[in-house]
Amino acid sequence: MLVKNALDYGKEESEIRKLFEYGKKRKAEIGAENVFDFSIGNPSVPAPKSVDESIKKLVDNMDSVALHGYTSAAGDLEVRAKIADFVNEKYNAGISAENIYLTCGAAAGIAIVLNAIVNPGEECIVFTPYFPEYKVFLEKTGGKLVEVKSDDNLQIDLDAFEAAITEKTRAVIINSPNNPSGVVYPAEKIQGLSDILNKKQEEYGHPIYIVTDEPYRPLVYDDIEVPYVTNYYDNTFVTYSFSKALSLPGDRIGYIIVSPKMKDSADAFAAIAGSGRMLGYVCAPSVFQRVVADNVDVTSDISIYKKNRDLLYNALTEMGYECVHPDGAFYLFVKTKGDSREFCEKAKKYELLLVPADSFGTPGYMRVSYCVDTAMIEKALPAFEKLINEE
Amino acid sequence: MLVKNALDYGKEESEIRKLFEYGKKRKAEIGAENVFDFSIGNPSVPAPKSVDESIKKLVDNMDSVALHGYTSAAGDLEVRAKIADFVNEKYNAGISAENIYLTCGAAAGIAIVLNAIVNPGEECIVFTPYFPEYKVFLEKTGGKLVEVKSDDNLQIDLDAFEAAITEKTRAVIINSPNNPSGVVYPAEKIQGLSDILNKKQEEYGHPIYIVTDEPYRPLVYDDIEVPYVTNYYDNTFVTYSFSKALSLPGDRIGYIIVSPKMKDSADAFAAIAGSGRMLGYVCAPSVFQRVVADNVDVTSDISIYKKNRDLLYNALTEMGYECVHPDGAFYLFVKTKGDSREFCEKAKKYELLLVPADSFGTPGYMRVSYCVDTAMIEKALPAFEKLINEE
Repeated sequence: MLVKNALDYGKEESEIRKLFEYGKKRKAEIGAENVFDFSIGNPSVPAPKSVDESIKKLVDNMDSVALHGYTSAAGDLEVRAKIADFVNEKYNAGISAENIYLTCGAAAGIAIVLNAIVNPGEECIVFTPYFPEYKVFLEKTGGKLVEVKSDDNLQIDLDAFEAAITEKTRAVIINSPNNPSGVVYPAEKIQGLSDILNKKQEEYGHPIYIVTDEPYRPLVYDDIEVPYVTNYYDNTFVTYSFSKALSLPGDRIGYIIVSPKMKDSADAFAAIAGSGRMLGYVCAPSVFQRVVADNVDVTSDISIYKKNRDLLYNALTEMGYECVHPDGAFYLFVKTKGDSREFCEKAKKYELLLVPADSFGTPGYMRVSYCVDTAMIEKALPAFEKLINEE
Repeated sequence: MLVKNALDYGKEESEIRKLFEYGKKRKAEIGAENVFDFSIGNPSVPAPKSVDESIKKLVDNMDSVALHGYTSAAGDLEVRAKIADFVNEKYNAGISAENIYLTCGAAAGIAIVLNAIVNPGEECIVFTPYFPEYKVFLEKTGGKLVEVKSDDNLQIDLDAFEAAITEKTRAVIINSPNNPSGVVYPAEKIQGLSDILNKKQEEYGHPIYIVTDEPYRPLVYDDIEVPYVTNYYDNTFVTYSFSKALSLPGDRIGYIIVSPKMKDSADAFAAIAGSGRMLGYVCAPSVFQRVVADNVDVTSDISIYKKNRDLLYNALTEMGYECVHPDGAFYLFVKTKGDSREFCEKAKKYELLLVPADSFGTPGYMRVSYCVDTAMIEKALPAFEKLINEE
C-alpha cells in the first residue's frame, strides 16, 4: 500500500551506488590507496577561496534575519538580477531577473520543469547516453521517456530525432557537455534540432519545449563553444546548477531560466512556480543564493580536470581503448570489450572501479570519471593496460 | 497545454502574498514605521550566535570537497546520529540514525512523505485550522484532502475525526504547535487519535499513517508539553524543520523520522527515499546538515516571542477580542467581528495588516503573527482598539 514507484525507486540500487558500497568495503580491506575508484561524479577540486570568503562575509556582515529568512519562491530579486546580467554579458541571451527561478540544484530544476510541462501520457525525448534520473523525474509527471540513439560519435542523430517526434512529444532534454560522455553538441546540431522542432510545432499546433540540463557548461577545455540554446530556439527552459562550476554539489543551488522568447513565457514561469510549490520547494537555500551571486563569474580550478582528461585519454587510447574525445564535463566514455557489465566486473580484479553504461541507455560502454587525484590515474594505468590485454 | 494544476497554483495569489505586496506599497507611501504588519511568519529573532560560529568553523576547518560534496541521499550518517541521540535523550523515542532522512525543510518533508504513502484516490485528513499548502502537496499524489472541523477551543474533535475516517483514509496530518492557531494538542488527544486509528487499521486491514508537521515544537511557553507522537502511535512519520527553532527558514533544513515501530519500517524508509528521488531532492544542503548537527540542542531566543504573545494576548482580550490562548508557535488566532475578509480589509484603514483565516479552513478568524518587534505591537494597540470599536 506504499506508493509503488516510490518504493521501487527507493529500493533500486543504482550501479554507481553498488560500486560505491563495494569500493568502501574494498578500501577497508586493502587500503584506499590501492583501489582505483573512477566511479564517482563528485568534483574533486575544492570550491574557490572566494566562495568560502563570501560565506563568512555574509555571516559577519548581513542581518541574520534577512540572510537566513525566506526569500521569494523564485529567489532573491537582486541575486536573480546578477545572474541575468552575467548570462546576458556572456551569451547575449536578453533575459531579465524575472525570467529566473532559483532552485535546489539542477535535479530539482529538471523535476520542476518536467512537472510544469509534461502531462500524463505525453512524451519526453532524451538522447543516449543520458542521465538515468530523467526517467525517475519523468515518472512523477505520468509522462513517458523516449530514447533516441546517438550516432557513433555520440552526437545527436537528427534523422532519428525527427522520426521519434510524435503528436505526444512535449519536451526534449539536452545535456551538453554530456554526463556520461563528455561530448558537447555543436551549434549546427542545436540549429538542426531547432529547425525540426519549429516545423513539428507548426505541424502539431502546440509547443514542444527544449529543456537543457547544463551543470557542466563551464567545464569545457580547449576553447570549445557550448551554444546557448535560447539563442537558437524560443521554447527553451535552461536548467543550471553551480554544483560542478563552484564545486558545491551538496549545497544544492542552481536555477531555471524560462526564455522570454517562449510563447506565453509569463504563464510558463507561473507553471514553474506552481510546480515547485507542489513538489515542496519553498525557496532555494538563502545563504547560497547570495554566495553564487557573489561568484557568478568564478569557476573552480578546472585546469586539473583538463590535465586528468589529457593524461587518461591519451594513455587509454594508446593502450587500444576506443573513446570519443570528451570536450567537457569530467568523464571519459569508453567502449568495453564485450558485455559492459561483465567487463566492469572483470576490472575489479585489477582494483579498478568503472561504471558500466547500461543504465545510461548505452550498453557496450563504461564511464570513467576523471574528477580524481592525478596521482591515482598515474598509478592506475598499468591496471587499465592489464584489463584490456586480458583474454 | 502547460500542466494545469501547476499553472493554477503558480498564478494563485495567496492572501498572505497579496497582503505582503499591499504592505510593501503602503510602507513606501507612509513610511514602514507607520504600518503595523502582522501578516508574516518569518522568525524575527536572529539565528543563535552558535549557528554563525558553526558555519565559519566548518568553512575554515573542514575539507572543502567533503563539506560541499554530496552526502548520501538520506543525509550524512554522523549528522543523523547526532539528531537521533538528541531526539532519544529528549523524548525517549528509541530511534536510530537509520530512521532519519534529512530534507530541505518541513515542506519538502511533508511533500516527500505524502508522495510515498498516498496513492491516487486515497484520502488524507487534516484538522482545521490547517496550513493551506497541505492541499497543494497532496494534489501531486492524486489524493484527496478531508477537513475535520476542530472544536471551539480549536482542539481535535475526536468524534468528528472518527466519523471522517473511511476505507480510503491513508494519512492524518497533525500540526502542533499549530500554525495558525498556536494551539498544542495534549497527550490525551494524541492518545485518543491513536486509539481510534488502531481500531480503524484493524477494521480495514491496512495501515493509516500519522504525519506530524512540527517545526514549532521547541516554540512553546509556560512549560507546555508537546507529546512525541511516535511514543503514542507506531505508524508515524515525524517531519521537522530547524526553520523556526534556529531562525533558518531560508536555508531549508529539516528531517523526516520514519518510526522504527512502524509496520514494515524499512520499506517505508525506502519509499521515502524513492519519493524524494522522484521529486528531485538529491540531498539536504550539506553545510547546513553539519550546522544543525552542531546546534541540535540550541534554540533562538524565544523569550521575545513569549513577551510578544503575552503583551498582545492580554491587550486584545481586554479590548474584547476573542482568542484561544496560544501555547506555542508565534501566532494569535482571533475571532473577527463578522466576515473575516471584510474585517481584515477594514483593518487596513488603521494600517493593520492581518491575515483572514478563510484559506486555513476557518472563516470567521484572522491570524495575527507576533514574530515582530515588540515596539510595533505597543504602537499598534490603539489601532486594534479602534478596529474592534468601529460600528
